[in-house]
Amino acid sequence: MKQRVYEIVEEAAPGNRASQAFDIFIISLIALNAVALIVGTVEEIHQVSPQAFRTFEIISVAIFTVEYLLRVWACTADPRYAHPVFGRLRFIVSPIALIDLLAILPFYMVLFVNLHGLDLRFLRAVRLLARVARLGRYFSGLHTLARVVHAKRSELLTVIMVLSILLLMTSSLIFFAEREAQPDKFANIPQAMWWSVITLTTVGYGDVYPVTVAGRLLAGLIAIVGIGLFALPAGILGSGFVDELRRSTDPPRICPHCHKEIHE
Amino acid sequence: MKQRVYEIVEEAAPGNRASQAFDIFIISLIALNAVALIVGTVEEIHQVSPQAFRTFEIISVAIFTVEYLLRVWACTADPRYAHPVFGRLRFIVSPIALIDLLAILPFYMVLFVNLHGLDLRFLRAVRLLARVARLGRYFSGLHTLARVVHAKRSELLTVIMVLSILLLMTSSLIFFAEREAQPDKFANIPQAMWWSVITLTTVGYGDVYPVTVAGRLLAGLIAIVGIGLFALPAGILGSGFVDELRRSTDPPRICPHCHKEIHE
Amino acid sequence: MKQRVYEIVEEAAPGNRASQAFDIFIISLIALNAVALIVGTVEEIHQVSPQAFRTFEIISVAIFTVEYLLRVWACTADPRYAHPVFGRLRFIVSPIALIDLLAILPFYMVLFVNLHGLDLRFLRAVRLLARVARLGRYFSGLHTLARVVHAKRSELLTVIMVLSILLLMTSSLIFFAEREAQPDKFANIPQAMWWSVITLTTVGYGDVYPVTVAGRLLAGLIAIVGIGLFALPAGILGSGFVDELRRSTDPPRICPHCHKEIHE
Amino acid sequence: MKQRVYEIVEEAAPGNRASQAFDIFIISLIALNAVALIVGTVEEIHQVSPQAFRTFEIISVAIFTVEYLLRVWACTADPRYAHPVFGRLRFIVSPIALIDLLAILPFYMVLFVNLHGLDLRFLRAVRLLARVARLGRYFSGLHTLARVVHAKRSELLTVIMVLSILLLMTSSLIFFAEREAQPDKFANIPQAMWWSVITLTTVGYGDVYPVTVAGRLLAGLIAIVGIGLFALPAGILGSGFVDELRRSTDPPRICPHCHKEIHE
Repeated sequence: MKQRVYEIVEEAAPGNRASQAFDIFIISLIALNAVALIVGTVEEIHQVSPQAFRTFEIISVAIFTVEYLLRVWACTADPRYAHPVFGRLRFIVSPIALIDLLAILPFYMVLFVNLHGLDLRFLRAVRLLARVARLGRYFSGLHTLARVVHAKRSELLTVIMVLSILLLMTSSLIFFAEREAQPDKFANIPQAMWWSVITLTTVGYGDVYPVTVAGRLLAGLIAIVGIGLFALPAGILGSGFVDELRRSTDPPRICPHCHKEIHE
Repeated sequence: MKQRVYEIVEEAAPGNRASQAFDIFIISLIALNAVALIVGTVEEIHQVSPQAFRTFEIISVAIFTVEYLLRVWACTADPRYAHPVFGRLRFIVSPIALIDLLAILPFYMVLFVNLHGLDLRFLRAVRLLARVARLGRYFSGLHTLARVVHAKRSELLTVIMVLSILLLMTSSLIFFAEREAQPDKFANIPQAMWWSVITLTTVGYGDVYPVTVAGRLLAGLIAIVGIGLFALPAGILGSGFVDELRRSTDPPRICPHCHKEIHE
Repeated sequence: MKQRVYEIVEEAAPGNRASQAFDIFIISLIALNAVALIVGTVEEIHQVSPQAFRTFEIISVAIFTVEYLLRVWACTADPRYAHPVFGRLRFIVSPIALIDLLAILPFYMVLFVNLHGLDLRFLRAVRLLARVARLGRYFSGLHTLARVVHAKRSELLTVIMVLSILLLMTSSLIFFAEREAQPDKFANIPQAMWWSVITLTTVGYGDVYPVTVAGRLLAGLIAIVGIGLFALPAGILGSGFVDELRRSTDPPRICPHCHKEIHE
Repeated sequence: MKQRVYEIVEEAAPGNRASQAFDIFIISLIALNAVALIVGTVEEIHQVSPQAFRTFEIISVAIFTVEYLLRVWACTADPRYAHPVFGRLRFIVSPIALIDLLAILPFYMVLFVNLHGLDLRFLRAVRLLARVARLGRYFSGLHTLARVVHAKRSELLTVIMVLSILLLMTSSLIFFAEREAQPDKFANIPQAMWWSVITLTTVGYGDVYPVTVAGRLLAGLIAIVGIGLFALPAGILGSGFVDELRRSTDPPRICPHCHKEIHE
């Protein structure tokens, strides 16, 4: 029976109808929870029936708790966590199980522990993010993205380092150029970094911008050079993504005449 | 004769002069209609001669109505819609015929039904969009784009899902960081989503931006990471587009084993 | 002697020292002219010595006029323009010679014809643009770009058409969504187009942005979808550019073992 | 012993533990210095203990000075700088050694020379940038990027030239379109260039934007065309980066004629 529970609570194998139904139920519940938590921050909607939000929250946590306990109980069916005690402990500290725990623990902490407003807010954020993160497990797209990031990690690291040095240099330069003309907006280098990030990513809110001739010359140069470099991660991720998806979907090509494989 | 009408009202086959002339006439009429509807929203221009706009509208709808009726009458020449009654019904509910209907129906609804101002405005939008959508049928470029989107649908779906989760997470985080400093701009998560979309797409209007240190750190991180991910759909579409267009122009490949041509 | 003048005034063939020197002289003069015209618009600099700007202008135009006349006189050395009268006329109406003429004609028009202020301003712009355009002739990079645009013209046309239809649709939609909330900023569809272009290109000045819930939902959707499409021309141009430059610089690959060419 | 010092102060060869430890120590010290210089510009943090910042600065400069002198003394172990006098002089004027000198010299200039406030600020910037630039030596990612920029230099030069001419033309056009409506923001062409750069890079702060119909038509056109061109450097760098990294990981190619390996 433990084997059966394990199969149901874990991601569905193809053809396992009960497990698929369970997955769909949990995904829907998480999605509904995310919607409730988001919509619940809109005062006008929350005031219509705070009780409904509360009830839905309690039912959800109850279901997630049962699911979590079932997972912990049944995990020994997995050869990696076979030991009744240490296997379960190792399962509990695995990233996936920790995220599951984070999605329910804040509810009980608020219930049993006396907490201040700030903590409550923080716990809500944790709960919401943990629930959304749980959704990720069910979608292969996120696994693909994770594989791409892993495959391109050296390129991405290189680029991140180059960007960090670029960010440092541009922030220092604009700070020395604008500090006197706009002492409130370029008071120090960390503040100048806010300008650098918003400019180099081409967001350009317009809350901070250079006004001196030197600052504008610098900003123009930074914008042109920096954009080329800041677009690199997108390009690397993009090409990796396209490659990764092509690899998994393209069958090896067969020559229709001699029926041998063609490696490209 | 029905066969002849059918050939004329449908997209022109190469060499069919009458049908080509008809296509050019309809395309010009649609383009003129779009221009009239757009320019007609400029009060100064509309007031010069409201009658002229009205007359042009009536003539256009009359022509589009005749064209629509001819299409419905002649569609039985197409083997797919051969049945005199059910074939025509199936044609009427086909997407292309529905768009044609939407381009004329609002005119008659305003004429015969008593409607309020709001509906009139909505009907105008429908009419304008339907007419522009009709134009699409005549251009092969849109078919190419549709094919690319179809070929890359799994990649695009994956990316859209990743972006949705990213949007949810960044909106929640910035909401918890900024809600107290700017309660009017980050009053709830749906409002914070507006900021997220405008930042992640690098539009950056500047109507909403973080002011706290935590919010700015978060925004900087979100901008850098998010832009890499939000540029993915563009990259996927772009590479798909280039592939699609290359496929139709590239020479056939040669198998390196038997040296024969491989047609893809 | 005409042959010699022709060789000197036309773009230098490799090894022709006199012609190269002449090219460098003309390029420098055009660059100096552009700088003078640009810097001359700064009131503080122009007032230092209006006479110096005037003198430099007169000398430049004199040299350009002599160069233009020499070109017209010597063009018969080119087999395409061999006929003494009709050849020269055909040369004069060729795009390159017309640009040359536009770079000097405005000066004489101001001198001999009585013109109003507006025309003067316009003529200055023409003169400046024509001179900068003349520079283009000497740089192979612009020829490369022109070849790329030509090679990718069908793709670019397709994309431009898709973008035009997208622009029309988004402008109409946002107009109907925002016209009541912001009648001054979304007064008509042409005004809404300004918003569309600035949003779809992700410039996002922040002078116009939606404030209604419907408008923001629409804008978010438009931003995400539209950016993917608006990045297409950049991607197409970019890949074409890389291909074009690779083609002209990469020698055909030779296998070092059997010394045959390898076509990729 | 000089050989040993040389091995330690230069970049570590694999397996040389002492040299690796020295590298890590210097990297950490540079990073800490950069952090101290950045954080030191925040008045609130600097005022906590100006003495601590001062002491850390003195210790750092002392260590960098000793390191610099050791490098100069030991450089003769490198065959390129073998001559005791001229070799050392040639080493001192090499770019890397000059950057090292710039990272310490400003400190002594402030100490021994009587300088004004402006110079002090400038020297600080030099010191900070030189220290960050020193970091670059230790990271292979920057070497990769430098190789990519070098490999693509002709493409990048071409694009930079095209962009310069585009910038000139758009600035002139918008200047003539907007100068009368906004004489304070488009007073001259250099000012209009600020608008051009910020628009063409899609930063779009919103401090300057066209308000006339002609200006907006122009800006819309410029935004669409220009973005395609301004994205070119990013595309070229990106594809060069991907190529460069692929080259080091790809399997050797096989000649289709003789089936032997081809090493690139």
